[in-house]
Amino acid sequence: MAEIIRIHQHKESFNEAIKDLSNLCSEDLHSINTLVLEKLDSSVPLIQEIGKYLILSGGKRLRPLLTTSCFHILNSDLTNNINHIGLAAAVEFIHAATLLHDDVVDLSKDRRGKLTANEVWSNKTSVLVGDFLFSRSFQLMTKYGTMETLKILSDTSVIISEGEVLEISNDKNLEINEDTYFQVINGKTASLFSAACQVGGISGGAKENEQKALKSFGTNFGMAFQLIDDAIDYSSNFETMGKNIGDDFKEGKITLPIILAYGRSNKEEKKFLKTVISKPDENENNFNLTKKLLTKYNCIKDTMIRANHFADIAIESLSIFRDNEYKSALIKLIETSIKRLA
Amino acid sequence: MAEIIRIHQHKESFNEAIKDLSNLCSEDLHSINTLVLEKLDSSVPLIQEIGKYLILSGGKRLRPLLTTSCFHILNSDLTNNINHIGLAAAVEFIHAATLLHDDVVDLSKDRRGKLTANEVWSNKTSVLVGDFLFSRSFQLMTKYGTMETLKILSDTSVIISEGEVLEISNDKNLEINEDTYFQVINGKTASLFSAACQVGGISGGAKENEQKALKSFGTNFGMAFQLIDDAIDYSSNFETMGKNIGDDFKEGKITLPIILAYGRSNKEEKKFLKTVISKPDENENNFNLTKKLLTKYNCIKDTMIRANHFADIAIESLSIFRDNEYKSALIKLIETSIKRLA
Repeated sequence: MAEIIRIHQHKESFNEAIKDLSNLCSEDLHSINTLVLEKLDSSVPLIQEIGKYLILSGGKRLRPLLTTSCFHILNSDLTNNINHIGLAAAVEFIHAATLLHDDVVDLSKDRRGKLTANEVWSNKTSVLVGDFLFSRSFQLMTKYGTMETLKILSDTSVIISEGEVLEISNDKNLEINEDTYFQVINGKTASLFSAACQVGGISGGAKENEQKALKSFGTNFGMAFQLIDDAIDYSSNFETMGKNIGDDFKEGKITLPIILAYGRSNKEEKKFLKTVISKPDENENNFNLTKKLLTKYNCIKDTMIRANHFADIAIESLSIFRDNEYKSALIKLIETSIKRLA
Repeated sequence: MAEIIRIHQHKESFNEAIKDLSNLCSEDLHSINTLVLEKLDSSVPLIQEIGKYLILSGGKRLRPLLTTSCFHILNSDLTNNINHIGLAAAVEFIHAATLLHDDVVDLSKDRRGKLTANEVWSNKTSVLVGDFLFSRSFQLMTKYGTMETLKILSDTSVIISEGEVLEISNDKNLEINEDTYFQVINGKTASLFSAACQVGGISGGAKENEQKALKSFGTNFGMAFQLIDDAIDYSSNFETMGKNIGDDFKEGKITLPIILAYGRSNKEEKKFLKTVISKPDENENNFNLTKKLLTKYNCIKDTMIRANHFADIAIESLSIFRDNEYKSALIKLIETSIKRLA
């Protein structure tokens, strides 16, 4: 029981860290939301409807927050021709587009407790509205950015889609190595975190070393964030006393805890893992047996060690900036994101 | 029998017109193909495989040809910082991305006599590789274009996806009016033709009025081209003596011939059209009855009149350019594209 409370407290503190950052950036966040809403406008009603369903569903706006806080971390009062609000909105549109397409690819039925768009409308609608959001993001970048920010964001889009294809190319492949898996999650999560930070910095007039620092910060934060997510998926017993089976397990997804477990398993255990991953189900017994293997081979612990490695680098990268409230808030964000599973 | 031969001749002459244009632009076309191939390169083998399957499947490269011929129509020896080869490749990548996503949306199984990528691999692979190709096109635009060409191409991408969503929003809606349908085909076809021409012109240093002319040329050519395609789909009896049922009919797609027929039909005929469109099948009898309605109400003829209207405007728009072989080749291209169904 003590453990349940602890985890809940940690979750709270991550949400609090997001809230603190949102408060710091509240004016910007308001402008970003206004712009996002404005740019969901379309002569085609279905686009507005789905766009609003998705984007206004109470997401944390983590990526646009990264853009705007990396703008402010520079203590800049720069008014150049690059608009960090517009770029933050572009980042949110890319993110929304990938969510729509991801849910089609994964055949997901719910996200954050709400039916997915593909479930409410259809897969084909999600594909096309995703294309719209993606196109809209490039329109925003063209309007509010420069060739430099365009290069960063279009390169990132390539990395995102390569990561996604790499992931489905390795579907059910338990022998995928850690480096390949890192390439996948770099595409899935870290590259957009990274670009979000970098373009925020550029909007604030970041010098080359500052840009590099923000890029590194975003990448490493994204890697850590995704790895903790992977580990949380196999830790539902703490929160719900074993009643919920993790989404990744249900979908037979290969994540780091499973990769580590497979590599360390004996022949019989390998066979078991192959079976549960290739034919995923909601069998609680299989889930518990899998978790036992993860415990036996320290896979959650080692996933967290990897996550901490990236988090440390992320925090370190901010050392070149003078202390200010944005820097503190970003550090708190990473620290609490890691402690979601302490 | 005479009619069969005539149609074949017309088809030949359109293909000849493409061939003539390709010969004129052969050096550029070679460079475009080389660049396209280079940019299909990815660390993820599946992307290369599908990209090559799609892009090297013997398409006519109509859109890149528009870009390069609109560059040359200006008789320019301009070497500015905009590269028409790179932009032509970007246009081809956008086109390829939309083909992949269209086939997922339409559940198509074959294209140009080959299995579609979603049929060979899977829908989810096509969604993600489409995203890759789309992202790659923006990378190319950023590398080879300017903010001006980026604006044109990102605006076009928005129009394309809006057109596609508008189309599925009006799925089976026989009461869609001509203007809405024109908005759909502007998105599906004409907007990318238009952007392809415009960015070609800009690379060649087109002045404002020349840019506008090329934009108008592309749009109107695209509209005419799509309308003739719509009409051809209901004219398969000439070629194959009734053995093939048009793809649009099989899929229950609403195109201009059907829109016109429905508007002009009596109550009973409307009921029949509603049935065949809402529950499409490969029933030859229904196909022939539908074609009889199209004949009764002059729907193919009137679709062609609309197509000719757009083709005339397209040809007219080129009048501001001095005569040269590129201009002649483009005019021949439109004329023969219209005569595919004479």
